[in-house]
Amino acid sequence: MLKTSSLRINLDRLLNRIDRLAEIGAIEGGGVCRMALSDEDRRGRDLVVGWMKDLNLDVSIDRIGNVIGIRAGTEPGNPVLTGSHIDTVATGGRYDGNLGVLAGLEVIETLNEAGLATRKPLAVGFFTNEEGARFAPDMMGSAVHQGVFRVEDMLQVIGIDGSRLGEELEKTGYAGEAVTGTCRADCFIELHVEQGPILEAENHDIGAVEGVQGISWTEYRLSGTSNHAGTTPMRLRQDAGYVASAISVEARRIANSMGGDQVATVGVTELNPNLINVIPKAALVTVDLRNTNEHKLQHAEGLMAEFVTKTCYSEGVSLESRTLARFKPVDFDPCMVDLVADTATALDYKVRKMSSGAGHDAQMFAPNCPTAMIFVPSRDGISHNVTEYTEPEHLRAGADVLLQVLLGSCQGASD
Amino acid sequence: MLKTSSLRINLDRLLNRIDRLAEIGAIEGGGVCRMALSDEDRRGRDLVVGWMKDLNLDVSIDRIGNVIGIRAGTEPGNPVLTGSHIDTVATGGRYDGNLGVLAGLEVIETLNEAGLATRKPLAVGFFTNEEGARFAPDMMGSAVHQGVFRVEDMLQVIGIDGSRLGEELEKTGYAGEAVTGTCRADCFIELHVEQGPILEAENHDIGAVEGVQGISWTEYRLSGTSNHAGTTPMRLRQDAGYVASAISVEARRIANSMGGDQVATVGVTELNPNLINVIPKAALVTVDLRNTNEHKLQHAEGLMAEFVTKTCYSEGVSLESRTLARFKPVDFDPCMVDLVADTATALDYKVRKMSSGAGHDAQMFAPNCPTAMIFVPSRDGISHNVTEYTEPEHLRAGADVLLQVLLGSCQGASD
Repeated sequence: MLKTSSLRINLDRLLNRIDRLAEIGAIEGGGVCRMALSDEDRRGRDLVVGWMKDLNLDVSIDRIGNVIGIRAGTEPGNPVLTGSHIDTVATGGRYDGNLGVLAGLEVIETLNEAGLATRKPLAVGFFTNEEGARFAPDMMGSAVHQGVFRVEDMLQVIGIDGSRLGEELEKTGYAGEAVTGTCRADCFIELHVEQGPILEAENHDIGAVEGVQGISWTEYRLSGTSNHAGTTPMRLRQDAGYVASAISVEARRIANSMGGDQVATVGVTELNPNLINVIPKAALVTVDLRNTNEHKLQHAEGLMAEFVTKTCYSEGVSLESRTLARFKPVDFDPCMVDLVADTATALDYKVRKMSSGAGHDAQMFAPNCPTAMIFVPSRDGISHNVTEYTEPEHLRAGADVLLQVLLGSCQGASD
Repeated sequence: MLKTSSLRINLDRLLNRIDRLAEIGAIEGGGVCRMALSDEDRRGRDLVVGWMKDLNLDVSIDRIGNVIGIRAGTEPGNPVLTGSHIDTVATGGRYDGNLGVLAGLEVIETLNEAGLATRKPLAVGFFTNEEGARFAPDMMGSAVHQGVFRVEDMLQVIGIDGSRLGEELEKTGYAGEAVTGTCRADCFIELHVEQGPILEAENHDIGAVEGVQGISWTEYRLSGTSNHAGTTPMRLRQDAGYVASAISVEARRIANSMGGDQVATVGVTELNPNLINVIPKAALVTVDLRNTNEHKLQHAEGLMAEFVTKTCYSEGVSLESRTLARFKPVDFDPCMVDLVADTATALDYKVRKMSSGAGHDAQMFAPNCPTAMIFVPSRDGISHNVTEYTEPEHLRAGADVLLQVLLGSCQGASD
């Protein structure tokens, strides 16, 4: 009798699927462009659904185009679900999302090959428009799947190219009939590349993801007075550019002083008229604050707001601020997180508990069923870029941990 | 016998000339577009030269197109010279430059009307391409006039529209034959609008300009690493945008800590990729430092350079810096400055000694002959803008001070 704990995935088979999927929408430099519900996405979907059928999965497609392939268990019930997304940004890599889906298929094939049945059903899914690069919001498919958004509303969304999501979905042939809005998962576990530098920097193989950071995006539009850089004394300036830069420096100060996993980024700064010898009359600046703790995130927001108000007042600059995004932190299930960490340790991988700085489909499941994620390192922390890369041995590590976590979640297997 | 100290200009006549000149190249909002050596500039020149001839001035044109109209004195010698420029920026006002030239003509007409002869000759000039908006460098005509640049070099300059200065000068009919490069002025006094807010803010009528600030322009190109705003811990960031903003905040700190007339401006900031959730990989930032004291200006430059080096190092951001402009401060003649101040006080105007933050034709004369400037207030400190405005009573004040200063410089008058 085969010991399930010694079962391992086939790395070559996994790499082969990653390569073949990456051929669809391939772009220069080894990257991929398969924007959600584009023709490339359709061809990618067809390839993955073909593989699902080859693996004898029972494939269902829901009204927003999420695809789930179920491997029956020895007992009925909601499946243990894994998966991610296969849409990409315009200059995406080949691992972001795809790894989670294809590793799920590799787990299925490993079980099939070993002739192992699980008590609970096991399913692999991919969710429509996780990236949000063509249609907003991102994580749309998983959000609809878990009842966060209504499918009728999402079908009306207009994309960056003027297309309507519902029509594009029809064109792909993936406007399915399965109902959305109820959980239908016993638990959810997603394997994903980290998209950040922490695992690599600390020489870890596996991240056991405890949750997703809360996100607070604020845009500040500052209006001062344009004036001559030479003839205007410092005390008479209403310099919108100065306030913008002070906000950026303060964002860094707040993050450093709070420590922990608080991060703060000023990614956008635009000055008007943006001339060397003219005091800027207007500035646009954005602040991106993230923390895994909602109270701490609110504290950072409070410090920032207070600073901005005070600095605008003292500089005589007027302010319009707008919240562009605000998501509370998501906590994954501690038992599931421990299962990931313990499984990785048992497989002799160096594992670190960590939070995700980016959003993922898993966070939509977290309120409704036990959920966790497995991260593998991203070289140089780079993602959403054609140079995105994860070592094959790390792909193996992630897929083997996924295999064992899924087996554990299916509560035993029988041959 | 008329007392020369009671002589006053005719405000209506001055306003009339300002209005008529502003009709040429008039643009919406009351502004003017007469770029150097354009057809509008030619028509403006023709109008002013016509007035010079009406006033019986002996008009000469030099090889770079500077025009000087001389009113003979009772004794021979270099004239006491006043004047400024009549070219404008693309969205210029009607006072910048024009006031100095037309007030000079008004002084001549006042003397003619009173039948007053001066001991020294008195002259009014306008200098080609002061603005530098079409052809670089600015203050070109006065610089050639005073031997700072060679006329042959300047005639080859290519403008923003691809035209060659020498050809454009020929087209206007103002390629004269008078030799350039020797001073030919007994002294030089220029009336100009302040183009800054100081006189208005402090409720002064007249500025007695002691000199022109030294200017130091530096461009910094910063290269860091683009990364995910959520997944990259603060300690692993190489944020070019952060360094840019820190430079801007430090520029302000330096100016405030040095005090005096030290000013510092960051007019340009550009981030790449300039996305809300991406740490900027590159930033472009410019620093404009000015001081009337060369040692202090060097001190400010030193502080800035030290900060930039240190901050780039600690952030792991690489740096390319480039000096875009560097002019030493210009000091005007203390006796001439006192003459301006004393004259304004005698005329019951509230006067303030001050430095000029902007460059002016006068600074080209300063090394070669006693030189000073008279400033009148600019509403809201605005210039290079169609809303540029100076109260008629301030125009009167400036022109009357100019009249008396010129009379004083001509060392007496006889009727």
